[in-house]
Amino acid sequence: MPINLTEPTELLPVPGVRLGVAAAGIRYRDRADLVLMEVAVRSNVAAVFTQNAFCAAPVIVAREHLAAGGVRYLLINSGNANAGTGDRGLKDARASCAHVAEILGGQAEQVLPFSTGVIGEHLPVPRVREAMPGLAAGLAADNWMDAMRAIMTTDTVGKGISRRVTLSGGTVTLTGIAKGSGMIRPDMATMLAFLATDAVVPAGDLQEMLNAAVEESFNCITVDGDTSTNDACVLAATGASGVRVAEDDDRRRFAAALQAVCDFLAQAIVRDGEGATKFITLHVTGGQTPDEARRVADAVAHSPLVKTALFASDPNWGRILAAVGRAGVAGLDVSRVRIEIGDVLIVEGGGRAAAYTEEAGRQVMDQAEIPIYIHLGRGRSEARVYTCDLSYDYVRINAEYRS
Amino acid sequence: MPINLTEPTELLPVPGVRLGVAAAGIRYRDRADLVLMEVAVRSNVAAVFTQNAFCAAPVIVAREHLAAGGVRYLLINSGNANAGTGDRGLKDARASCAHVAEILGGQAEQVLPFSTGVIGEHLPVPRVREAMPGLAAGLAADNWMDAMRAIMTTDTVGKGISRRVTLSGGTVTLTGIAKGSGMIRPDMATMLAFLATDAVVPAGDLQEMLNAAVEESFNCITVDGDTSTNDACVLAATGASGVRVAEDDDRRRFAAALQAVCDFLAQAIVRDGEGATKFITLHVTGGQTPDEARRVADAVAHSPLVKTALFASDPNWGRILAAVGRAGVAGLDVSRVRIEIGDVLIVEGGGRAAAYTEEAGRQVMDQAEIPIYIHLGRGRSEARVYTCDLSYDYVRINAEYRS
Repeated sequence: MPINLTEPTELLPVPGVRLGVAAAGIRYRDRADLVLMEVAVRSNVAAVFTQNAFCAAPVIVAREHLAAGGVRYLLINSGNANAGTGDRGLKDARASCAHVAEILGGQAEQVLPFSTGVIGEHLPVPRVREAMPGLAAGLAADNWMDAMRAIMTTDTVGKGISRRVTLSGGTVTLTGIAKGSGMIRPDMATMLAFLATDAVVPAGDLQEMLNAAVEESFNCITVDGDTSTNDACVLAATGASGVRVAEDDDRRRFAAALQAVCDFLAQAIVRDGEGATKFITLHVTGGQTPDEARRVADAVAHSPLVKTALFASDPNWGRILAAVGRAGVAGLDVSRVRIEIGDVLIVEGGGRAAAYTEEAGRQVMDQAEIPIYIHLGRGRSEARVYTCDLSYDYVRINAEYRS
Repeated sequence: MPINLTEPTELLPVPGVRLGVAAAGIRYRDRADLVLMEVAVRSNVAAVFTQNAFCAAPVIVAREHLAAGGVRYLLINSGNANAGTGDRGLKDARASCAHVAEILGGQAEQVLPFSTGVIGEHLPVPRVREAMPGLAAGLAADNWMDAMRAIMTTDTVGKGISRRVTLSGGTVTLTGIAKGSGMIRPDMATMLAFLATDAVVPAGDLQEMLNAAVEESFNCITVDGDTSTNDACVLAATGASGVRVAEDDDRRRFAAALQAVCDFLAQAIVRDGEGATKFITLHVTGGQTPDEARRVADAVAHSPLVKTALFASDPNWGRILAAVGRAGVAGLDVSRVRIEIGDVLIVEGGGRAAAYTEEAGRQVMDQAEIPIYIHLGRGRSEARVYTCDLSYDYVRINAEYRS
C-alpha cells in the first residue's frame, strides 16, 4: 500500500509531444511495456543520469545521443534493464534506436533509449522491432496516462503529475511521469522520470534548472542506499507554446513548478516503496556545510536500526543519535544536538529531553508521515532527505523475488 | 543459531589476572551481569574505543583513566549502556570506579569502566555498590568462563578463546573474551572485548600491536553499518610470566597469536548476529589503494539488496556489481571487474561469465560460509570484510525488541 499516494486521474497533454504505447511482450504478458515519446523538431532536451560506474547499456547510448543533439524520440521499455549485458547490450540499444529511425525517419542518434527491469538478460530486440509500426501509428498527444503505466515494473501505482505555469508571455504546461520504488526492488533497475513542457527554454537553462530540481528531489530520496544502474530523468522543452522562459521572474516561476513536479514524483517513488509503511522526511539544520548536513541525513536514512525502529513506531532516539554520531562530522559536539520528531522534542544536551515522554514519542511515531528534525548547532547549512522504514516486506520482496 | 560457532569448553587463566563475577540485578534477573577484572601492579594496558562522536559515558571515563596510567581494575556491566545519559552518566561511571577503589584500595582513576546494554537509561549505581564486596571477595584466576557469560547481552553463546604462545624466553598465555552481535542488536551498545596475557610487553608496543590486530579483525566486521556508542577492546599485559616480547621473532609470533585471537572473536560476533544465516567473507583485490578496496568491500557488505540475496541463496551477481559500481571508485573500468563466489566465476568483462550457470551459483550460495572474491583489476591493494546476510529475523529482532 503506497503511503498517501494515489494515481493521477488525468495528465495534461504537452503541445509538441506525442506518445505511443505497445505491448511488445518483452517480459510481461498482456500489458504495455514499450513507450515511444516524440518531441517536436528543435525541442531542447536535458537529462540527468545515474552516477553508478556500472551503468546500463541504454544509459551509455542515451548519453552519446544526447551529446550529438537534435533529439526527436525517447524509446522506453520495461521488463528488461539491458544492464550487465556487455558489448551485445550496447549493440541491442543502438539497434532499437535504429528501428525507430527506420519507421519514423531521421537518424538513430536522434533517439534516446531507456530500459528498466531485470539485470543481466539480453533485450529481445526483435520484439521491439515488431512493435515499432504499431507504436508509431498510435502516436498521440493524450497518451500520458498509458505511458505512465507502461513504464511501471513492480510499482503498485502509476506516478504522474501536471502543472500549468503562468509566465509573463502566457501559460505553459509541465507534465511528468516516473517509475520506480526507490532502489527497493530487486534487479529492477530502477528510477526513470520523463518530463515535458511546451515552454521555450534555452538548452543551457533547461539543463541548469533540471540539475537544480533533481538535486533537491530525486537525489534526496533513499530507500536502502543502493543506487541503480539505469536511473535517468529527462526534461524536454518543445517550445510549442511560443512562451519564453526568459525573464528572471519567469525563470523563478518555471523553476518552482519544475521543482514541485520533481518533488512530487520523487516522493511518490518513496511512498510506493513496497515494504514501506512510513514516509519519513529528515530535516537536518545547523550544519557547518551542506555536505556535513547531508552526511548526517544519509547516515540516519540508511541506518537499518533507525529504519526498523520507524517500522515498529518505536521512538528510539538512541538509534538516531548513534547514527548522527557516526556520520563522520569532525568535532561534533553531541551536547549541542537537538532532535525533534514531529512537534515532540526528544533529544537535547546529548540525551533524552527532560519533558519527553515515551507516550508522546510513540504517538508521533505511529503516524504514516513522520518528519524528523535534527539540529546540529554548528552553523547554518541544511539538508533534507526523504526515506521510508524497513519492514518484513522489504526482506520478503528482495529475498523471494527470484524464487 | 550461530553459524559454525560454539562456546569454548575452557579458557586458560592468565597469571596476573583475577576476575570476579556478580549478579547485581542491573537489568537481568537471576544472572551474572557485573565483572571485575584485576590486573597485576605494573601491568601495561592498551585499548581501542568507538569512533562514534556520540560515545557513552564509560567510554569517556575509561579514556581519561587509561591516559592517567596505573590501571588495576576493569569494571564491566551488562544490561545498561550508560549512553545518552548526559552529565549524570559521567558521574555514575566515576562513582562506580570510586566504589571499586573504596573496597580494594587505590584510586578511582585506576579503574576503567565499561557498560553494555540499553541506551538512555541511568545506571543503577547503588546496585553496583552493593555487589562490590562480593565481587572483590570472589576474585579468582579461573573465572574467565563466568566473566565471558556475564558480559553477554543478547548474544546466544559466549565468545572466548585461549592461545599458548612459545617465545624465545618461554611460553605465555593469551586469553580473550568478547560480547556483541555486530551492531545487530537494538539498543544494545554493543561490542566489548577483553584480552589479557602474562607476557612482558612494553606499553607502546602493546598499543601498536593491538591497533594492528583490531584493524584487521574488529574493524573488518559489519552487520548493518551501524557503529555502537560503547565499543571497546582492551588488552592487558601483566608480565607475570617474566617472558619478554622483545626480539623481532617474538614480536611476530605474539602479534600473530593476538591477530588470531582478535580474528576469532570478531568472526564470532558476526557468526552470532541474530538473524544471520550465512557468514560472508568479502575479499577485494586489485585496488589502486587499500582505501578504495575497503570502500568497495563496505559498499557490498552494506547493500541490503546483496544481503537479502545472500539470505535467499540467490546468486544475484547484478546486485553485487551494482554495489561495486556505486562505491565511488573514480574511473572504475567495470569491464575489468571479476567476481567469484567460492570457486564459481560469476562475473567477468562487465557481465555474466560465459561458463557461469545458475545451478553452480545457487549451489555455492547455499553454503553457510560464503567467500566472495571481487577483483578490481586496477592495482595491488586488498581489503577483507566479514559480514552476514539480512533476514526476516533481523527485522523482527530490531523492530520488536521493545514491544
